[in-house]
Amino acid sequence: MSTITLGRYLWERIHQVGVDTILGVPGDFNLDFLDYIYEVQGLRWVGNANELNAAYAADGYGRVKGVPGVVVTTHGVGELSALNGVAGAHSEQVKVIHVVGQTTRQMQKQRMLIHHAISNDPDHSVYSKMSKLARVAEAELEDVSTAPAEIDRVIRECFIQSRPVYIFLPLDLSHEHVPASLLDKPLDISYPVDTAAQDSAISAIISALSSATNPAVFVDALTQRHNAVSEARALVEKLKLPVYASNMGKAIVDESNPLYVGTMNGKFAAPGAYEALQKADLTLLLGDLPCDTNTGAFSRPITPANSIVVNPFDVKIKGKDYPNTYLKPLLAALVEALPGDWKPQAGIPQLPRLEDCPEHPAHPANAYRKWPAQQITHDWVWARVAAFLRPGDVVIPDTGTSTFGLSDVPFPVGNVRFVSQAYYGSIGWSVPAALGSELALEEIAAAKKRQGRPDAHAARGRTLLFVGDGSLGLTVQEIGTMVQQKGPRPIIFILNNKGYTIERIIHGAHYSYNDINNLSYQHLLPLFQHPSPATCYRRCASKQELDAALADPELADPSLVQVVEIVMDKLDVPWRLMEIIKSREGKEQGLRAEGFLE
Amino acid sequence: MSTITLGRYLWERIHQVGVDTILGVPGDFNLDFLDYIYEVQGLRWVGNANELNAAYAADGYGRVKGVPGVVVTTHGVGELSALNGVAGAHSEQVKVIHVVGQTTRQMQKQRMLIHHAISNDPDHSVYSKMSKLARVAEAELEDVSTAPAEIDRVIRECFIQSRPVYIFLPLDLSHEHVPASLLDKPLDISYPVDTAAQDSAISAIISALSSATNPAVFVDALTQRHNAVSEARALVEKLKLPVYASNMGKAIVDESNPLYVGTMNGKFAAPGAYEALQKADLTLLLGDLPCDTNTGAFSRPITPANSIVVNPFDVKIKGKDYPNTYLKPLLAALVEALPGDWKPQAGIPQLPRLEDCPEHPAHPANAYRKWPAQQITHDWVWARVAAFLRPGDVVIPDTGTSTFGLSDVPFPVGNVRFVSQAYYGSIGWSVPAALGSELALEEIAAAKKRQGRPDAHAARGRTLLFVGDGSLGLTVQEIGTMVQQKGPRPIIFILNNKGYTIERIIHGAHYSYNDINNLSYQHLLPLFQHPSPATCYRRCASKQELDAALADPELADPSLVQVVEIVMDKLDVPWRLMEIIKSREGKEQGLRAEGFLE
Repeated sequence: MSTITLGRYLWERIHQVGVDTILGVPGDFNLDFLDYIYEVQGLRWVGNANELNAAYAADGYGRVKGVPGVVVTTHGVGELSALNGVAGAHSEQVKVIHVVGQTTRQMQKQRMLIHHAISNDPDHSVYSKMSKLARVAEAELEDVSTAPAEIDRVIRECFIQSRPVYIFLPLDLSHEHVPASLLDKPLDISYPVDTAAQDSAISAIISALSSATNPAVFVDALTQRHNAVSEARALVEKLKLPVYASNMGKAIVDESNPLYVGTMNGKFAAPGAYEALQKADLTLLLGDLPCDTNTGAFSRPITPANSIVVNPFDVKIKGKDYPNTYLKPLLAALVEALPGDWKPQAGIPQLPRLEDCPEHPAHPANAYRKWPAQQITHDWVWARVAAFLRPGDVVIPDTGTSTFGLSDVPFPVGNVRFVSQAYYGSIGWSVPAALGSELALEEIAAAKKRQGRPDAHAARGRTLLFVGDGSLGLTVQEIGTMVQQKGPRPIIFILNNKGYTIERIIHGAHYSYNDINNLSYQHLLPLFQHPSPATCYRRCASKQELDAALADPELADPSLVQVVEIVMDKLDVPWRLMEIIKSREGKEQGLRAEGFLE
Repeated sequence: MSTITLGRYLWERIHQVGVDTILGVPGDFNLDFLDYIYEVQGLRWVGNANELNAAYAADGYGRVKGVPGVVVTTHGVGELSALNGVAGAHSEQVKVIHVVGQTTRQMQKQRMLIHHAISNDPDHSVYSKMSKLARVAEAELEDVSTAPAEIDRVIRECFIQSRPVYIFLPLDLSHEHVPASLLDKPLDISYPVDTAAQDSAISAIISALSSATNPAVFVDALTQRHNAVSEARALVEKLKLPVYASNMGKAIVDESNPLYVGTMNGKFAAPGAYEALQKADLTLLLGDLPCDTNTGAFSRPITPANSIVVNPFDVKIKGKDYPNTYLKPLLAALVEALPGDWKPQAGIPQLPRLEDCPEHPAHPANAYRKWPAQQITHDWVWARVAAFLRPGDVVIPDTGTSTFGLSDVPFPVGNVRFVSQAYYGSIGWSVPAALGSELALEEIAAAKKRQGRPDAHAARGRTLLFVGDGSLGLTVQEIGTMVQQKGPRPIIFILNNKGYTIERIIHGAHYSYNDINNLSYQHLLPLFQHPSPATCYRRCASKQELDAALADPELADPSLVQVVEIVMDKLDVPWRLMEIIKSREGKEQGLRAEGFLE
């Protein structure tokens, strides 16, 4: 009987489900089985600068590729460093597999005081207990006869639940052998659809939609997380109803689609969008993520009574629960089930143009402060950046002013992916996530070529990262991984506004705790041994300089990592952020005293 | 009645027990109560580049100052990012207080989907559950009437148990008021000594020591962690017995003390040290930390039957347990209890000089490879560096070749602190820990001045950090904090050996997973806006260059952050590391094939 090591089995299985990159940091309890990565054709190792960054990168990879991002760490020290990144994936329902190189089974049994262990009488599973609440399944491997099935089980759970799973692999166990033939049967990652439950939900959805007089569709972020973007787009095309999106669900349905009305963060929306949705008597809400930062502090005009909410694992129609469904197959079946002669009951609201709405806070007449004409400001920069977008691009903001600015500006071209962590909101996430995005885009393009797809020769999508100087400082070393892996070539826009501007407007505008350690960004690419730092770094302190940077062909079609430093004032914020903060009782006067408002 | 906010109370209480710096990262669930730090005279905020670094810095501060390092994070994202640093402090018994800015009590009660929360129906205490096993006590504050006592209780536990505690402070609660008079009564951080238990242990220790014919003292790391260095030194002076130390307990008793025989890592020791200790019929072991990396893989010549082990909370004499003691007061009482006419029963073994031991692996005749004469090698560099030391210095290696090299070289001057995390072994720890050390040294010097101590005008101790390029990559941004805080001026020796050399010798010497993203270190200080990068950075690729750097007065008496890049070969390792690895069955041949051995 032909056999392979359990370590090899693990990597082959992971590769079979569409993962081509293993991220992580080596350590003496995973080194041995990292070797087996090199035995798997088409699978590569990309080492990260640290474990938290590795987990963030896996999260970004998972979001863009739709398969799990995989992060490997070593027992304890590495495992815990990654935890916040994994918890973010758990919170935001992203597929991540965390493989932990565990102490040997003998060390565990004898509770040996091996380095990285925690206490006087060490329980080597103590770290596994810590991360238990940040995952949906785990394989704590110890028996080679059951290990392959355990590995299969948790990979499957990762797909179906779209949340992190853990695999704890004792170093010694990784060398034991299993039958190679186990690889022949593909891993089943299909949803265990309960057809009766799904049919019942679909009938009820169609019935409710049919009896509505002015229905609408609202697309939210979990649609993307549960890999149902194409199904949502097909559904929208068939329903022909007006489409809205949350800020986190932005661009799941193309904003250039004529059905598309607007993006909103609860009542904080483009002129007329909120009011238009308010007029709907029934909203079909796909992939709901109703957190404060995605609902304008819970101010959406959507209630249980006037909505059909398609959740990942159930549907709620006017408050009544239809359980045991799965978002992606349900949307696909719904498209099929809609009558061929389906007619939209609602016209598409035509919103007024911003320039015709002088009362809207985003109207130039309502600028919070007057800035010098050439100064790059939030009310100017986002539309300018949007004009730079191309189909296939991935746009990643960090949690900060960029996430507000970007989610409010319409993307003029279709097929742009907006990848935002606005719920979990862990600053620094975006930089490694952009690395993960680039690795995923590279692999997607390579797969198209391998499959001889007609669009195989089009330029691959670009990753546009927008990160403030505050957030960047947390994870800056991951730019080194981008540079040295050679394939990744994100366009990194650094918003240099001298600290945590989003915190300044919340509290303590001029307290030193909102200052950061400032960097001289011209030294960033040289530090990481970028081959052409002078041509790939641009400092833009004026609109003219940013226009020139955006017109540079090397920036538009990058062959190397690009950095654009955008100098902004520390008291300049996007309108939506300002309006949310300003609406807090008694806050406006303080903002004026601090200099946010004139 | 005069009142203060609970936030102010917290910081005042922390300051009262000797803490002058609060470390951390601001976030919207702690911003409000960071303001109160500025109200406490003598207390300062030092913001870190990220939360893991903040926890490491707090750990370094705690180790050097002997009071808790305090780290503040925000709910969830920051809290979890810091966890690995806190777990390291827990594992290594270091005093750390982790203050978590928690969501408001109303948000918690209503399980609101507030950003940073984790699941569909969020339990806001989920992160507290995750870190439960990395602390000895927590105050989950919700009631202002009990909060001051809760705060006092956990600060006290932090001191007594010398391990991390957590304080969860809801944002809204921080503004509520408590009587200012609560600050008048000093917080009791004294050990609750059980005099009968302590006396019984002391009598048994003296009796056992008296009946031994060739006793010895062995000093280990927990002596330092439990603030018993001066007691251990006094005890050694009174006992006049031969003194040994573990590698982690190095320099707790001065190596220049005539009683001092040698440092050992189990059987891996200077010539004759292991054999000399083997001849002891009874070893008084202080502050035992018997992990693999501190005992030469459990090869110490110390057994329960031939030892008195003074643990933090009990004493074991030839296997018999004497519970309910505390290390520091017990050692102090033991010094007092020893008879005035105490005579040592054992002479001090005189070890042979290394140069007279041609069979010892560290002897030049046994070099593993021949290197060019000017190349900086492990067998040369550590003695050279030891000659640079001055009393008062703090020496911090990272987990890697430096921790092996430094712990084996005798420190020729006394009163040097060796701060090592060789048990928990989290790479990257040393860089923020060096920041914490510098902040502590600054404060210790300032306190001496305030108190008008006779040694107040001596130059303060220096922090010498030895970090490999691999470890540095994980936490490099904390150098920015050092530069921009201005006070800190560590001397940072970067061992540039192109990757994870300690892992190369363990496994996969030439696999790409042991490579790292190389940096061009001349850009490091300019990136962080160091005011004099050209004079404070030195690249040393030869012995001559390193000699010249060490002779530079600005390096020896630094006024700014200093960087010395030491270029070494990626297959050069210290002798002890080599011997430990080489002793593994069948490994020697592989090391030869890989190029570690000639």
